[in-house]
Amino acid sequence: MTEDKESFPQNFLSDPLRQHKPYIPGEQPSSAERTIKLNTNENPYPPSPSVGDKAAEEIKKLNLYPNPKSNQLRKVIASLHQISMEQVIVGNGSDDLLNLCVRAFADSNRSVGMLDPSYSLYEVLASIQGAQLIRIPFASDDFELPLKKVTNCSANLFFLTSPHAPSGRAYQLELLDSVAGNFNGVLVIDEAYADFAQQNAIPLLAKYPNVIITRTLSKSYSLAGLRVGYAMGNPSVIQVLDRAREVYNLDRIAQAIAQAALEDQKYFKETKQKIIESRIWISDIFAEWGWRMIPSATNFIFCKPLDHSGTGGAQIANSLYSFLSTQGILVRYFPQNKLTESYIRISIGMPEEMSMLVSKIKEWQHQGQLK
Amino acid sequence: MTEDKESFPQNFLSDPLRQHKPYIPGEQPSSAERTIKLNTNENPYPPSPSVGDKAAEEIKKLNLYPNPKSNQLRKVIASLHQISMEQVIVGNGSDDLLNLCVRAFADSNRSVGMLDPSYSLYEVLASIQGAQLIRIPFASDDFELPLKKVTNCSANLFFLTSPHAPSGRAYQLELLDSVAGNFNGVLVIDEAYADFAQQNAIPLLAKYPNVIITRTLSKSYSLAGLRVGYAMGNPSVIQVLDRAREVYNLDRIAQAIAQAALEDQKYFKETKQKIIESRIWISDIFAEWGWRMIPSATNFIFCKPLDHSGTGGAQIANSLYSFLSTQGILVRYFPQNKLTESYIRISIGMPEEMSMLVSKIKEWQHQGQLK
Repeated sequence: MTEDKESFPQNFLSDPLRQHKPYIPGEQPSSAERTIKLNTNENPYPPSPSVGDKAAEEIKKLNLYPNPKSNQLRKVIASLHQISMEQVIVGNGSDDLLNLCVRAFADSNRSVGMLDPSYSLYEVLASIQGAQLIRIPFASDDFELPLKKVTNCSANLFFLTSPHAPSGRAYQLELLDSVAGNFNGVLVIDEAYADFAQQNAIPLLAKYPNVIITRTLSKSYSLAGLRVGYAMGNPSVIQVLDRAREVYNLDRIAQAIAQAALEDQKYFKETKQKIIESRIWISDIFAEWGWRMIPSATNFIFCKPLDHSGTGGAQIANSLYSFLSTQGILVRYFPQNKLTESYIRISIGMPEEMSMLVSKIKEWQHQGQLK
Repeated sequence: MTEDKESFPQNFLSDPLRQHKPYIPGEQPSSAERTIKLNTNENPYPPSPSVGDKAAEEIKKLNLYPNPKSNQLRKVIASLHQISMEQVIVGNGSDDLLNLCVRAFADSNRSVGMLDPSYSLYEVLASIQGAQLIRIPFASDDFELPLKKVTNCSANLFFLTSPHAPSGRAYQLELLDSVAGNFNGVLVIDEAYADFAQQNAIPLLAKYPNVIITRTLSKSYSLAGLRVGYAMGNPSVIQVLDRAREVYNLDRIAQAIAQAALEDQKYFKETKQKIIESRIWISDIFAEWGWRMIPSATNFIFCKPLDHSGTGGAQIANSLYSFLSTQGILVRYFPQNKLTESYIRISIGMPEEMSMLVSKIKEWQHQGQLK
């Protein structure tokens, strides 16, 4: 190293890294803290009991490299969605797949589009690739899809979060069909939460070669700690993503556990049903209180809290968020955007956690009344 | 999708992807086939018996996201090498860390350097980043480090494989010190095999801010199937790599198993010793036969086979490689390069596997004699 050490490593950074800001995840408290964690849309139920044996089998073989293509897992996914194995790729979390999409279809001359607000990782991935970002804002806090703005935008690659996050809103298949048919680029429909919805975009795969659907096992399969996601698309697109993929992107245990979890559809449906029931239960309570909510097609609720006097707004949302935090209940608050600053996002937890949440919110309302 | 479907997805590819060729790993036979697998430098011993319990504990918590920074694992690594936690980053295999180095320190104006031949993944990573590749060839099949050529090259980021692969040759610390001191860029010393060597480059970390050392648990810790690696460097460099990193790059089970394996130093040393003993045993036999070998500081042997008449060369190496393959013994052959085409690379397996290898080589020699 002959150059001035003071200038290191700044003078050696790649162009994209010079401005790059990483993704900030929701708070992950240490396991020692006793918290009710409703801030990162994890599933409150443990994974299928069948995954333990599968993992134990693989541990003895950990000295050997995994199957580089995760072929068994691809087969299971293809069979689950009744598509061909050539339409499936798996990754180290769906974040890995979103990143592959950016590496394959974006660069300094090919921009990335996203709904604003939606998953802020899209921006991070575009930034590190040195690609321009096009934000398509929503017209209001109804979070209706701005169809024309999306299809007219010049992005080479567009991320459409459906059901939408953080609002939880579902988009009808006909609407997504319209986007896919009219957008001249690669359309990624990020279906991280689709298992909790009534509809999904899989029928579009047979119709449009430019559609990629991404899924994660983090939410509906209770495997946020494992990092497994997958993408479905035209075989020609899957081949491209495979070329961009790290050769051994998914370890042996992750492949085995993901397979076991996907194969236990009984457990999957039972836990999903419980979450949907809790979602309905808490939505009904908030509705009774007159809180504005987006009908949720996900495992979270996006709601506009009202204080004892029936007033909502950024200050009120922030007040409830902070109060719950002091009570050991973590929820998510997005003050950066006018459309979200009056809302909080609450992941669906265990029934007893949701009851505790309700009583703590009542306490917050009561405290406000006494002031 | 309004454009001609025929042109899809080619017309939408990012510039780097248009030419990109992925890494081709060594053959991974299906578990049904009975083979002696000496082709991808896996460890023949299973991982430490302590890893099973650690994995089982984590399975119950898989519904929760992992610690995004893998902090416990970083602590264990820092303590093992007597450096600070701020000097450590972990990844999904050392490939993940090599990729982060490229994303952080290479782009279309900042080139990547590598020894030729060495680990072909460096080229793949540079290609997908759209960075130019500078190959520094060896002068001969002694694989002596071409010091001046490395330090004079214009690469912004240089990958130096030490011990070298595929030759297995060790480079002295003084020589690496010279490279680090005279190279005006980021020097990655890829120590994938360093645990099998007498020396390593860790002392350079205190001296040079531009040195990054990468390690993998795939080889010496019997965890090729798990995908865990780490990098050590100046805190300012580690911060940069952390900014480029995927937020949850290592799952809960991988973090726990890696930690357990690193903490079981007794098992690590025992299995390492066994491999070194097997390496000496097979090297002595090849030496007796008059085979040229690079003294190995790794868990593999790079040797130039001779047939019954004492002749070596590309044809002979290819003949032995093919013969062993028909006998269910997989080794690695690199015909693409003049310096390697007369050699084969053999991973150190179990003692009984090495005995079988020796008797099969004798059979091959004998067959040649009969022709």
